[in-house]
Amino acid sequence: MAVNLFPPAAADLKPVAGVRLGVAQANIRKPDRKDLLVVSLAHDATVSGVFTKNRFCAAPVQICKAHLDAVQRDALSIRALLVNTGNANAGTGERGYEDAMATCTMLAALLSCKPEQVMPFSTGVILEPLPVDRIIAGMPFAIDDLAEDNWLDAAEAIMTTDTVPKAASRVIQIDGKTVTVTGMSKGAGMIKPNMATMLGFMATDAKVPQALLDTMLKRATDQSFNCITVDGDTSTNDSLILIASGKVDPGIVDENSPAYAALQEAITSLAQELAQKVVRDGEGATKFMTITVENGVSREECRRIAYSVAHSPLVKTAFYASDPNLGRILAAIGYADVEDLDVSRLNLYLDDVWVAKNGERNPEYREEDGQRVMQQSEITIRIDLARGNDAVTVWTCDLSHDYVSINADYRS
Amino acid sequence: MAVNLFPPAAADLKPVAGVRLGVAQANIRKPDRKDLLVVSLAHDATVSGVFTKNRFCAAPVQICKAHLDAVQRDALSIRALLVNTGNANAGTGERGYEDAMATCTMLAALLSCKPEQVMPFSTGVILEPLPVDRIIAGMPFAIDDLAEDNWLDAAEAIMTTDTVPKAASRVIQIDGKTVTVTGMSKGAGMIKPNMATMLGFMATDAKVPQALLDTMLKRATDQSFNCITVDGDTSTNDSLILIASGKVDPGIVDENSPAYAALQEAITSLAQELAQKVVRDGEGATKFMTITVENGVSREECRRIAYSVAHSPLVKTAFYASDPNLGRILAAIGYADVEDLDVSRLNLYLDDVWVAKNGERNPEYREEDGQRVMQQSEITIRIDLARGNDAVTVWTCDLSHDYVSINADYRS
Repeated sequence: MAVNLFPPAAADLKPVAGVRLGVAQANIRKPDRKDLLVVSLAHDATVSGVFTKNRFCAAPVQICKAHLDAVQRDALSIRALLVNTGNANAGTGERGYEDAMATCTMLAALLSCKPEQVMPFSTGVILEPLPVDRIIAGMPFAIDDLAEDNWLDAAEAIMTTDTVPKAASRVIQIDGKTVTVTGMSKGAGMIKPNMATMLGFMATDAKVPQALLDTMLKRATDQSFNCITVDGDTSTNDSLILIASGKVDPGIVDENSPAYAALQEAITSLAQELAQKVVRDGEGATKFMTITVENGVSREECRRIAYSVAHSPLVKTAFYASDPNLGRILAAIGYADVEDLDVSRLNLYLDDVWVAKNGERNPEYREEDGQRVMQQSEITIRIDLARGNDAVTVWTCDLSHDYVSINADYRS
Repeated sequence: MAVNLFPPAAADLKPVAGVRLGVAQANIRKPDRKDLLVVSLAHDATVSGVFTKNRFCAAPVQICKAHLDAVQRDALSIRALLVNTGNANAGTGERGYEDAMATCTMLAALLSCKPEQVMPFSTGVILEPLPVDRIIAGMPFAIDDLAEDNWLDAAEAIMTTDTVPKAASRVIQIDGKTVTVTGMSKGAGMIKPNMATMLGFMATDAKVPQALLDTMLKRATDQSFNCITVDGDTSTNDSLILIASGKVDPGIVDENSPAYAALQEAITSLAQELAQKVVRDGEGATKFMTITVENGVSREECRRIAYSVAHSPLVKTAFYASDPNLGRILAAIGYADVEDLDVSRLNLYLDDVWVAKNGERNPEYREEDGQRVMQQSEITIRIDLARGNDAVTVWTCDLSHDYVSINADYRS
C-alpha cells in the first residue's frame, strides 16, 4: 500500500542516448519474474557512485568502488552495470567477492570489455551464496534485450519488496540543446541516511567531467537519498550511481559553467523524486511525512532531531493511527541528544496547525485541528528551534501492522 | 502477552520497615482502577534518585530533583512519594510545575511535613493538564490505606499499559541481621537507556549514608535499567528511586564496610529483575532477548553495537517471526557507527549455535539449528568482536503486530 505512488508510464521515461538497458528472468530467488538487469554504456561515459557506510558492506559494493578507481587509474571507462535482485551477496566473505568477480568477468567477455569496466549490484537476502550460474545463464537474454527505451522494465527488474516500480525523467534545454536525465530506484525497508537496501541509478546524456560528476552526485545525494528513512536500518548494499554518457555537450567544464546550475538542479530534483518514491513505498506505509527542523544552530543538530522524530516507533504508530499524540513528538525531540537544547523556546507545527508554543501546548491549539491534519496521507511536521539559521528536511513514513507482517514474512 | 512474566504473590513481597504504601482510585484517566499511590517514609530515611535525560523532562522530574537537593541542604529528609498514573504532567510548562507543586503542598499538609519533603511522580499521556483536584481528592483514601505489606497493590496502582504488576524482594543476612530490599517497577513501551516511561521504586530497611546510597543506586542502574530497551524511545518522566529507611543498621559506612558488597549485590540483582520484568512486559512482546557484545575495546563500542541490534526493527520483526534472518543482525552491527570495526574477525552466536564465523556465515551452521533456537521464548544473541576485553549486555524484546496495535490505540 504505497502512499500516492503510481507506476510511471513508459512514455514518461525518456531514453538517454548512450545508455541501453536489458532485463532477463534468471530465477535467482523466485520464478517468473525479471530479476536480472544489464545496463550497457557508451564508450567514454563517466560514472560516479556513492555507497553504504555499513561496515558489512557487501562484496559487490567493494568491487564497485575498486572498479571505479581502476578505470580512472587505467584511463578506461565503465562499460556496463550488472544488477540482480533476490540475493544481496552480503556476509558471504571471500567467496562472495569471487562470485561477484566471476559475474563481472563473464559479462565483460560477452560485451568485449575488461572485468574492471563492469560494476556489479545485488539486493535481496543476506548471508546466502550468490547463484552465479543462474546469473551467468541469464546474461545473454538481458543483452539481447538491450534498448534505450527500456527504463520501465529495468525499474521493475530491480524491485524486491517494492510494490511499485520507481522511475522518472527530467528534460531541460541548455543553450538550445536538449539534455535528458532519467533514473530509477528501489528501496522499501531498511532505508536511512547513508542509504540502505536501496539502489538508485540515474543517467544523463550530457557530457560531464569526472570530478564535476562526483560533485553533482554528492550534492544531489545530500538533499535526497541521505534525507530519507523508513525504519532506521541501513543496509549492506546501498548504492547510488550517476552516469553521464557524453552524447550531448552543453559545455559544462566546471561549477562556473553557465549550464552547471541547470543540470545540478535537474539531477537533484530527480534524486529527490526517486528518494521520496522509496519512502512512499516504504514497507506498510500509509502516510508520507515531511519533517523539517528549522532555526537550529547547526545542520547537525537539526538532523539529529529530525531523525530522532523520524525513527521513533511511538511517533510512527501515532501517525499510522491518525492520532495527534504530540507528546510523542516532543519526547523524541527531547531525547535527540542535542546537548544544550532549550525546549522552552521550541515551536511545533503540524502543517498549518500551531501545536506547541514555547515548549508546551499552544493554548490556542484545538485537538480537532490536529485530528484534521492527521487524517491526511501527506503531513508536514515543522519544528522551530528558534535559536539559529540552519534547517534540515527529512522524509519518512508511518509504522503499520503491514510493516510487521512484511518483515516477519520476508524470507518465506 | 508478557514473556514468562507472572504477577508476584503478595506473600513474596517482603515488607520494608519504615516504608508504608497506600493506594486509591482517583479517576485520573479511567474509572474503577487504582491510579494513585502514596508512599510514607520513616523519619530520617535517605532517598536517592536517577532521572530521565530527556530535554523535555516533565514537571515532576524537575521537582523531584529540586526536593532531593532541598532536603539535603536543609538537613531534612524525604517523607513521602506521590505517584499517579493516567497523566504524565509533561509538556505542560509553568502550569505543570505549579500543578505538581500543589499536590506536594497538599500531601505535605496531610502528613505534617514540608512540601519539599514530598517527591511527585506522574506517568501517562503527555501534553494534557494534570487533574489536580482529583489527585487531591484521592489523597485521604490513599493515606487511610497506608501499610507496610501493601507492595502488590502499589505495583498495580502504578501500571499504565503494563499487563502484569512488577515487584520482587531480596532478603539477606548481614552479621546476623536480616536486611530486606523490596521494589516495584512499571514500564511497557518507551524503554531505553537513560530510562523511559519507566518508574522504579526500591526500598531497603538498612541504614545507608546518603553519598553511599547514591553510589549504590548508580551502580545498580548502570547494570539494570540502563541496559534495557523495548522500542528505543526515551520518555520525559523516567525515575528510579532507592530508599533506605534506616530501621536496621548493618554497619555500612562506606564502600569498605564488610556488608557493603552484599547489600549492593542484593540491590543490583533486584534492579535487574525489575528491569527485565519491564522488557518481558514490553508492548506486544512475545520473545525476551539478551544481547551480549563481548571482547570489544571499550564498553562504549559494545554498547553502541548492542543497542544498534536491539533497536533494529528488522531484527526485532525477524525474532517475532522466529526467522533466523542473521543477515539482519550483521547489518545492524555494521551500521552501529563504530569507526574502525573489523567485521572479518567477528563471531555471532544464537544461544549455543555458532552462526557467523570471522564475519561470514559459519560453514558448519545449519539453518535448522538457527530455527530451533528461534522457536524459544528466551534467546541470547552473543556477538564476539574479538578485539578487546570489554563487554556489555542489554535486554530487549521483539516487535510484533500487537506493538503496533497497542501504540496506535493508546489514547483511545
